[in-house]
Amino acid sequence: MFKKVLVANRGEIAVQVIRNLHEMAIEAVAVYSTADRDAYFVELADEAVCIGAPLPEQSYLDMKSIVTVACLLGCDAVHPGYGFLSENAEFVVLCQEVGLTFIGPQSETVALMGDKASAREVMQAAGVPVIPGSDGTISDLNAALTLAEKIGYPVMLKSAAGGGGKGMRRVDDKAALTVAFEDVKRESQLSFGETGIYLEKVIEHAKHIEMQVIADDFGHVVYFPERDCSPQRHHQKLVEESPSSLISAERRAELGAIVVKACQSVNYRNTGTFEFLMDPDQRFYFMEMNTRLQVEHTVSEEVTGVEMIKAQVLVAAHQPLPFDQADVQVTQFAVECRINAENPAAQFMPAAGDVTGLFLPVGTHGVRIDTGLREVDTISPYYDSMIAKLVTSGSNRAAALKKMQRLLTELKVTGLTTNQAFLVDLVASPEFVADEVTIESVEQTILPRWLDDASKV
Amino acid sequence: MFKKVLVANRGEIAVQVIRNLHEMAIEAVAVYSTADRDAYFVELADEAVCIGAPLPEQSYLDMKSIVTVACLLGCDAVHPGYGFLSENAEFVVLCQEVGLTFIGPQSETVALMGDKASAREVMQAAGVPVIPGSDGTISDLNAALTLAEKIGYPVMLKSAAGGGGKGMRRVDDKAALTVAFEDVKRESQLSFGETGIYLEKVIEHAKHIEMQVIADDFGHVVYFPERDCSPQRHHQKLVEESPSSLISAERRAELGAIVVKACQSVNYRNTGTFEFLMDPDQRFYFMEMNTRLQVEHTVSEEVTGVEMIKAQVLVAAHQPLPFDQADVQVTQFAVECRINAENPAAQFMPAAGDVTGLFLPVGTHGVRIDTGLREVDTISPYYDSMIAKLVTSGSNRAAALKKMQRLLTELKVTGLTTNQAFLVDLVASPEFVADEVTIESVEQTILPRWLDDASKV
Repeated sequence: MFKKVLVANRGEIAVQVIRNLHEMAIEAVAVYSTADRDAYFVELADEAVCIGAPLPEQSYLDMKSIVTVACLLGCDAVHPGYGFLSENAEFVVLCQEVGLTFIGPQSETVALMGDKASAREVMQAAGVPVIPGSDGTISDLNAALTLAEKIGYPVMLKSAAGGGGKGMRRVDDKAALTVAFEDVKRESQLSFGETGIYLEKVIEHAKHIEMQVIADDFGHVVYFPERDCSPQRHHQKLVEESPSSLISAERRAELGAIVVKACQSVNYRNTGTFEFLMDPDQRFYFMEMNTRLQVEHTVSEEVTGVEMIKAQVLVAAHQPLPFDQADVQVTQFAVECRINAENPAAQFMPAAGDVTGLFLPVGTHGVRIDTGLREVDTISPYYDSMIAKLVTSGSNRAAALKKMQRLLTELKVTGLTTNQAFLVDLVASPEFVADEVTIESVEQTILPRWLDDASKV
Repeated sequence: MFKKVLVANRGEIAVQVIRNLHEMAIEAVAVYSTADRDAYFVELADEAVCIGAPLPEQSYLDMKSIVTVACLLGCDAVHPGYGFLSENAEFVVLCQEVGLTFIGPQSETVALMGDKASAREVMQAAGVPVIPGSDGTISDLNAALTLAEKIGYPVMLKSAAGGGGKGMRRVDDKAALTVAFEDVKRESQLSFGETGIYLEKVIEHAKHIEMQVIADDFGHVVYFPERDCSPQRHHQKLVEESPSSLISAERRAELGAIVVKACQSVNYRNTGTFEFLMDPDQRFYFMEMNTRLQVEHTVSEEVTGVEMIKAQVLVAAHQPLPFDQADVQVTQFAVECRINAENPAAQFMPAAGDVTGLFLPVGTHGVRIDTGLREVDTISPYYDSMIAKLVTSGSNRAAALKKMQRLLTELKVTGLTTNQAFLVDLVASPEFVADEVTIESVEQTILPRWLDDASKV
């Protein structure tokens, strides 16, 4: 087993990783930017080294500095957390070259899944259902019309070089497609200097359903009960729950068998998550695979009792998984809310600043609150704006939701703007209580109604 | 179901009761003394009424004031928590007389179990093994010698009117008994004005093992996996765990059957706990029954997932238990440490005062911390000195213990003396790790060694 592990991250996930390492009797080394000088994870680590200025490029993304610290302090391995370098194949290679174990998949897998086109191809080949669409770019209108007819409207035209919502157009029929085809090409040329576009079916009223896996060196792959992460804004998750109340044990096992087979086809190692859209008929469409731990792994820990970070460390150290599929049972229902320093009334704009008081309503069965903050602390503008993850669990969805509603009422964060009041409304909303939230619901229904109600007060 | 419940307690248990009530959509009324004006449970309640001065007799034991508040504010029921009025039969009667539901057993049961002699008699009749000894007082030396011969030395001579460790003498053989018999009689006369003494077998190297039950109005009685509360000082519990690593599933079921039968024999309602001594041959000896929720119910909640306060409220409202014996499974191993403001180096003398900083290492799977305090708060000299209950759980005892060791290292309490450093030593001690702690171990072995080690530094 490793003796000393460098944690290449910050905030709450750095805290969680260090705690798990300590419980495994492994020393933890933190690296931090000057903005995080007084952060709790720095104090908690056995050793901590400042590696640069606040901007991520100057510290948490500075691969060379991180690897240098790890080598000088005699680390065996690096845990990347989520975000930053966690899905950077180049970093995985660099660790390998200097003899450090990267606690995650191999560099080839990280690279393969990082490219959406290649990931789609590989998954389709492995029998994973993907969103129907063109294989690669589509050159002329006739081909587009034929394909759209085949997969059914509405479809999305996307610039192959696009991103950030630019060079995208939804079309609902033949006439619209005819007009839009040249428009999107032109837009793509103007914005990205390329005319390549591709076409994809629009999955309407979809839920975001994902499934986490973990694999060891000995061919064991285990999946965890699905998570529903549909409450989103700007494609970012706000609330996650597991298991989905809509999915039967049989459907879960079917989906599990598909993702396990896909992992085996790419010789997957360590943990990862398959993200799907699920349409109202419970058809799944692969979106992407995250080759790292996710923020919401917490709900799966509460549901199954499996500690994900410990399992990651074990398999990275070439040990067999200490559990098999039969040990991973749904024992609880769990839900998580991300408390962020952000303003829901201003398109969820981040609201960095000083936390002048943080009262976490800890205690009582079925409550877990993960944070990297102290009672008085700072949300830096350089990093993500998460204050805490509130997780509740219960023997059924209603019990967990009631507990979350109580928790959200009791939590106190002073000094900056947060999404707490909006989450209170979201968790009690008829759509959420009925488990009918789709990936559009927050932006299209729940937020506008909340703002409207607020304006009347 | 009740609409409004008065919580006749303070501190962490008041907080837990209020939270459970809120999760059941029941309003909570707090009563408090002037010493608790700024306490968190007062803020958390929907309504709060000051009922008097800090001394318990002037507030938390003032039955009439409490009942008056409950009636004036339209409460349906009273939850007594633990301590204070929770085992006071007169209070149960008073509640009944004014039409308030007492969330606990009937007054007759409370009275019956409150008298140790009658409790012993009833339990023995119901087939519960009791500590061998005289039935009532013993008048002459010959009878004492005959009985001691029969039950085996060592035995304890106790003044029937005694208490607080006075009028008690352990004797190891016939000669010693002959001498001590008249001595204890004389001591009893001097101290208590009565010469009545009784004789009881000494159970050596015993563990404190207890079993909680809950019963509804429909004849359902369910027991929970045993708790081992052997680490004690001054007969007060410091650390509790569940289930016992020493007790097999068969033995657990046997003991469970005995306590369920005993409950049925007295028509028991609501929750209660049977306390036993367990000798090294795993023979059980009934000590007493607590007719209330106990501090350490938390470990049973973590082990089984059953929320005890909610179950208490349900059965008090004449609803059937929402689970049966088969639903109460050992899903986790859990351990609890009581962090107290006290000085282990001075016979654990309470060390009331101001908490100038409280950092609770919350978050991470398997961690629960119950407290009634805020980050800056006061431990009042008028009440018990508990700061927080740290509870960890894991899939086995070793995992829960490792988590507790990490937690105890990370916790920070500043401003007053606590037992934290001693608990760090206790939880890592060879006796505790090997699960060999008896009720004598803390005072006879672990504390002296710790003090000795400390003196060498």
